Amino acid sequence: MTEPLFTIPLWADLLGVGLGGVQGAMFASGFQGQRRLDLLGVAIIGILIGMGGGLIRDLMLGLPPATLQSNWYLLTATGAAIIGMLLAGLLNRANGVIVGLDAIVIGMFGAFGTSKAIGLGVPPVPAVFIGVCAAVGGSILRDVIMGLPVAIMHVGSLYAVAAAAGSIVIVSAYALGLDLVIAGIVGIVVTAVIRVLAVIFDLSLPEQRRLYRRKVAAETGMIPIIKP
Amino acid sequence: MTEPLFTIPLWADLLGVGLGGVQGAMFASGFQGQRRLDLLGVAIIGILIGMGGGLIRDLMLGLPPATLQSNWYLLTATGAAIIGMLLAGLLNRANGVIVGLDAIVIGMFGAFGTSKAIGLGVPPVPAVFIGVCAAVGGSILRDVIMGLPVAIMHVGSLYAVAAAAGSIVIVSAYALGLDLVIAGIVGIVVTAVIRVLAVIFDLSLPEQRRLYRRKVAAETGMIPIIKP
Amino acid sequence: MTEPLFTIPLWADLLGVGLGGVQGAMFASGFQGQRRLDLLGVAIIGILIGMGGGLIRDLMLGLPPATLQSNWYLLTATGAAIIGMLLAGLLNRANGVIVGLDAIVIGMFGAFGTSKAIGLGVPPVPAVFIGVCAAVGGSILRDVIMGLPVAIMHVGSLYAVAAAAGSIVIVSAYALGLDLVIAGIVGIVVTAVIRVLAVIFDLSLPEQRRLYRRKVAAETGMIPIIKP
Repeated sequence: MTEPLFTIPLWADLLGVGLGGVQGAMFASGFQGQRRLDLLGVAIIGILIGMGGGLIRDLMLGLPPATLQSNWYLLTATGAAIIGMLLAGLLNRANGVIVGLDAIVIGMFGAFGTSKAIGLGVPPVPAVFIGVCAAVGGSILRDVIMGLPVAIMHVGSLYAVAAAAGSIVIVSAYALGLDLVIAGIVGIVVTAVIRVLAVIFDLSLPEQRRLYRRKVAAETGMIPIIKP
Repeated sequence: MTEPLFTIPLWADLLGVGLGGVQGAMFASGFQGQRRLDLLGVAIIGILIGMGGGLIRDLMLGLPPATLQSNWYLLTATGAAIIGMLLAGLLNRANGVIVGLDAIVIGMFGAFGTSKAIGLGVPPVPAVFIGVCAAVGGSILRDVIMGLPVAIMHVGSLYAVAAAAGSIVIVSAYALGLDLVIAGIVGIVVTAVIRVLAVIFDLSLPEQRRLYRRKVAAETGMIPIIKP
Repeated sequence: MTEPLFTIPLWADLLGVGLGGVQGAMFASGFQGQRRLDLLGVAIIGILIGMGGGLIRDLMLGLPPATLQSNWYLLTATGAAIIGMLLAGLLNRANGVIVGLDAIVIGMFGAFGTSKAIGLGVPPVPAVFIGVCAAVGGSILRDVIMGLPVAIMHVGSLYAVAAAAGSIVIVSAYALGLDLVIAGIVGIVVTAVIRVLAVIFDLSLPEQRRLYRRKVAAETGMIPIIKP
């Protein structure tokens, strides 16, 4: 394999891992009843959200996972998960913070996935697909391991749509000759804005949202934190 | 790694992806109640069934996934999923079509997995195992993501047996000097015929089938489409 | 990639696979009611527990899975699963044997994962992480595929803690100049002893243990075999 056209800088990668770890731990801290997790369980979910997207991305690219080539990723994810637990206690299920972090995190993971794929010469359609999988893969793993209905299949389609929109912007901008770093930043903004607007304007199919809420409420004894 | 002895032709690979996508979307369209999926959810399941087996196969072989090296796989899987949704609407849960497609798809995925493994010099026992995993892996991912009981663990053993029989035929025929392409075609036929006969003659343990049906019916509000 | 500093001997790897296969099949044989598995299902769980940890380890290291490079792994795992089924029938859910085997198996998988990572030049923090994932990954796959609550998330934290302790001992001993083989043996002992002591002294959060037992009992019609 030749030298990639583009390498994600370590600080940016760690920023994504850290924000993901905070968001994952805040989300996992909120569960009660049968889904309630102990401290280590919350930390595992934080690490999973922080590092899962990058792991899936690198497996799909056929590369050894970048997150396991240095000590920094795991230290960052673990530290971030601890911060997330403390914040969850302080802010008492701060819905807005979790949604905002989540929007930025899926934007970053999607943009990193797509950019890394393009940089390695992956064609545009699979590059978008890898970006979407990197963006939403961590949350699928989280739902499967916590025994929750996989949000993206039932109500969370706008997750995937937001991530796909950002990835398509990156691929298109790059094809038009834009610098990949600038294209990536634009992609992060596009994904995060679509995701936040979807939550603010409550964009999802009402019937499915109702089903999802009833299901999660029945199983966990609480209304889901993130408005789907 | 040296040049493989055998490469699956692109048209055959895309045919498997396309039939898998149609079958996956038809299957996913049939669910009601808590498992009901929106259009994007149905498309995701179609893509998963179309491409999941190949992804698992290449991860097990330590190769970058072939399905992500060209635009065609994702375009085929997505188009096939849309066709599957339309067909599901037209044919109103056409049981026979779904079962027939499923039999051909597991035959193709199993044969491609085993042939690719043999072509890369993998020994016969793991070559059969990779074929079985490629054949049934997509349906395991589907059940986990849809929150269904994993069919293959409870009643679908004949899935794995059918895939294993086809793979063993391929490995044996190749060891006896038969051309790998012809061996692969024979393997597809063996797997598909066993699978279809199992459905026609309703071959599975009655007690477990009853348990499975009751469980799926309780959770989804419908009797499972595919007779296990 | 340069020559690794250390290669796990085949006999040791196969011993881990075999003990894992016996333990997995004994565990899976014990389920009644909706989770009851047929013989092939029990064999699949045995193979999964025997080989899952090594597969996850090698995917994380970016290597083609060692368990699929030779016929011996699958033959050992399958034979071990058959022995496990016979033993489960003879010993009528021999709790102590299952717990003891489980402790040794997670010790071996953790030690092999960490040692192989160190031998390939992976830094210490991800080397510990890979060891923990190799140790507990098989049981996570088992729980997801059997539709059980993932034990490690709800009550089984001491699993991960035991595996992490053994892996940290290996990394530390190697950093202090100890031979990697001796360090690995010490790590196996540390993990296995912590795990067995945790079961004997019933070390886990009482509230969560109660929730887990009630949940599994409700879903499976039986009290979980392994005291969490």
